Amino acid sequence: MFGVTGDLSRKKLMPAVYDLANRGLLPPGFGLVGFARRDWEDQDFAQVVHEAVKEHARTPFREEVWQQLLEGIRFVPGQFDSDESFERLRATLEELDTARGTGGNHAFYLSIPPSGFEQVMSQLSRHGLAERRPGTWHRVVIEKPFGHDLASARELNDVVETLFLPQEVFRIDHYLGKETVQNMLALRFANQMFEPIWNNHYVSQVQVTMAEDIGIGGRAGYFDGIGIARDVMQNHLLQLLALTAMEEPTSFEASQLRAEKQKVLAAAHVPDRYDLSTARGQYAAGWQGGRAVGGYRQEDGVAPDSHTETFAAMRVDIDNRRWAGVPFYLRTAKRMPRRVTEVALSFKRAPHLPFAATDTTELGTNALVMRIQPDEGVTLRFGAKVPGTQMDIREVSMDFGYGGSFTETSPEAYERLILDVLLGDPPLFPQQEEVELSWKILDPVIDYWASLDEEPEQYPSGTWGPKVGDDMLARDGFAWRRP
Amino acid sequence: MFGVTGDLSRKKLMPAVYDLANRGLLPPGFGLVGFARRDWEDQDFAQVVHEAVKEHARTPFREEVWQQLLEGIRFVPGQFDSDESFERLRATLEELDTARGTGGNHAFYLSIPPSGFEQVMSQLSRHGLAERRPGTWHRVVIEKPFGHDLASARELNDVVETLFLPQEVFRIDHYLGKETVQNMLALRFANQMFEPIWNNHYVSQVQVTMAEDIGIGGRAGYFDGIGIARDVMQNHLLQLLALTAMEEPTSFEASQLRAEKQKVLAAAHVPDRYDLSTARGQYAAGWQGGRAVGGYRQEDGVAPDSHTETFAAMRVDIDNRRWAGVPFYLRTAKRMPRRVTEVALSFKRAPHLPFAATDTTELGTNALVMRIQPDEGVTLRFGAKVPGTQMDIREVSMDFGYGGSFTETSPEAYERLILDVLLGDPPLFPQQEEVELSWKILDPVIDYWASLDEEPEQYPSGTWGPKVGDDMLARDGFAWRRP
Repeated sequence: MFGVTGDLSRKKLMPAVYDLANRGLLPPGFGLVGFARRDWEDQDFAQVVHEAVKEHARTPFREEVWQQLLEGIRFVPGQFDSDESFERLRATLEELDTARGTGGNHAFYLSIPPSGFEQVMSQLSRHGLAERRPGTWHRVVIEKPFGHDLASARELNDVVETLFLPQEVFRIDHYLGKETVQNMLALRFANQMFEPIWNNHYVSQVQVTMAEDIGIGGRAGYFDGIGIARDVMQNHLLQLLALTAMEEPTSFEASQLRAEKQKVLAAAHVPDRYDLSTARGQYAAGWQGGRAVGGYRQEDGVAPDSHTETFAAMRVDIDNRRWAGVPFYLRTAKRMPRRVTEVALSFKRAPHLPFAATDTTELGTNALVMRIQPDEGVTLRFGAKVPGTQMDIREVSMDFGYGGSFTETSPEAYERLILDVLLGDPPLFPQQEEVELSWKILDPVIDYWASLDEEPEQYPSGTWGPKVGDDMLARDGFAWRRP
Repeated sequence: MFGVTGDLSRKKLMPAVYDLANRGLLPPGFGLVGFARRDWEDQDFAQVVHEAVKEHARTPFREEVWQQLLEGIRFVPGQFDSDESFERLRATLEELDTARGTGGNHAFYLSIPPSGFEQVMSQLSRHGLAERRPGTWHRVVIEKPFGHDLASARELNDVVETLFLPQEVFRIDHYLGKETVQNMLALRFANQMFEPIWNNHYVSQVQVTMAEDIGIGGRAGYFDGIGIARDVMQNHLLQLLALTAMEEPTSFEASQLRAEKQKVLAAAHVPDRYDLSTARGQYAAGWQGGRAVGGYRQEDGVAPDSHTETFAAMRVDIDNRRWAGVPFYLRTAKRMPRRVTEVALSFKRAPHLPFAATDTTELGTNALVMRIQPDEGVTLRFGAKVPGTQMDIREVSMDFGYGGSFTETSPEAYERLILDVLLGDPPLFPQQEEVELSWKILDPVIDYWASLDEEPEQYPSGTWGPKVGDDMLARDGFAWRRP
């Protein structure tokens, strides 16, 4: 694990490894090797892991599991440009292979900035750490962002693929944990009643929302100049769009699922009047959770004239038989009134005269909402008669929540993902082709925004975004959901 | 109101009249005339009404409303064969017309056994009580049962129509209060998402259930020899079937709605191997609500060798393009484990291979359930992924309840019905044509059962009915719901 001193490693990766061990899902010989620029001994690193596990693991701490894990924990102090460091790493892995019987199977987890990838690849190669030996596997795990546009994504991939085959590269998008993806697949395809109406005959529009109720926090160094579109729209939102819009795969194998997602992404584009089909904004001062908060430009590390967007919305059209004419509206923002991720299919109005006299604002928002987080579940909004003497229809909803319906708990996203890496089971990891298709959709929008050379519209913190975003839907006769 | 000393009158009709008055829905001059074989003065009858209202009205008692109502309350002691009685009735109505300004508009509510209809009609005619005078209306209200087979239904209707035009005859089926019917219409037709799957492409079977958790109580005199099929299947269950299966009417006017219901009933029949397509049973001793209870044949007034069924089930096929191939299973019974009326559409299994390995007993019960009573609402059962590492699907449900979703309360069925009679607004009242079509469906089944000359299969009280009923569905590959 490169970059083992980071926050992600401490809060998510180490606890996930322990939880997997605790559930009996790791082989007894499993070893964890940390690599970082620290003057640590094995036991110092073990102490860090121990504290991370104690603090963040989801399963109870059991001393015997920890002791078993501890025997495989090693630390290699080192720098990416140091041959000596990688020589130590090689020796450590060989020692583990012998002592623990790991048999030469290695997964390299790059929890480091992409700028370091090239150097790490070249060192792994130079020190014989990525040689393919018969009967063993090696894999590499990289995290989003996968580049910041199509060109950089390709460059990054070229670097990684100097050493690793495409099927050996695991792109972690923790947000799309297996559970979420599989829930969507199950809802759509394990049931008879949704798929018949899942098309442009019945659906009027689809809204994919990922709203955060916080600002950028201390992440200005990463976020400013990148913006929320590159940060989450390219990956999370377009993946949710693909899962919502794709055809039924013939099986749930990685290749089949990927093929269907790629077909959708290849057919998707933002209508090219970008002034009408996209919107961006930047949070200004406002209120969040009853507290006055400053605007984006007042955040530490953000340039006072930054054009970086914290609200991004775009319309995506999908040119295929199922979806032609149905706009998919993607929206993501920081400092919204609440944290919510959902996919909402809105249905056309029932074409029936007797209800025509009924107040139209009450009708027409018939929707099936897949709630991704928090409170994962499904909501169906439909019209029911208001009790009384008139035939008045009002929208009501019925709910299903995974939490309330199942006693089983979902494995934490990183547990599933790390296990899948070890098992070599890639179904839910996006492949390079999807990454590139997503950038192809997003690049022209970001180029257009850059070409404007003007500041994004300000919206008060704690509101649902700038007017330009509302106008974008209003022109099509729709309105954003207020979930 | 003829038959004003009965239970129905005291518990439902009088309180409903008061509630309507209290809600301001009755004209100030409204008068209520009781006719019965009692030696009562007006004030004795008023006292009976007063007590009924105090005990059973749903709205708060308000003295000024009562006083207003009281002024229009009259009683006519009388017998059906007495000219003098009907002369007194005529005089009373005339007095009210003058004193209260009711202007000659009369509704005759026949809360009496059908055997009395002929005599009442002839008396109304002889004493000039049913003369059509310009600018006034007269109407007659009759209650189910509308005959006990096709022939008797026609005879009964002929009797009533000697005096009244078809549109002046209001057949009260309180069970199908306007609210239930309109809820079903709203759910189906005010929404875009249900109608596309409401057909034989997606629906595998429909179950209409009306289960009671009580026995016949003191109603042996009415029930024995009649049976539950005649009692409720002919009207309630076939009406629910018609509302579920009918095409969308061009409007909700009485004639349009009736036309669609009639089309469905005309296309419906029980497959003619009645040994396979019907089932009946009779409750035996058993347990109900933790209490030991006796069987049907031990009830007071029931013949110890009675063949009268207390459980009836039949399969109805509808020969039209929408429903061909979809069995509608109707079931009604007394002494079931719980009281419930519902219509459940079960959907075919999703035709998708990846789920084929999943346990089939868990799948395949995908259903949309319209709950009629108690706890009116809608339930959707669908498959969702069980949290965990496998793609296991389990049925879950989402619910909508009218009670929990609306603060408005539904008017009591009799309130709506009486108001509709006064307003001359018949949309939800079944017309003679529907009554006859329903008997045409039921008559051959009842004839078949009679021809067997054997006792219905016994089922223990507090269970879901006899084995013959389960077998009937099992042959088709289905099972009754346990709602």
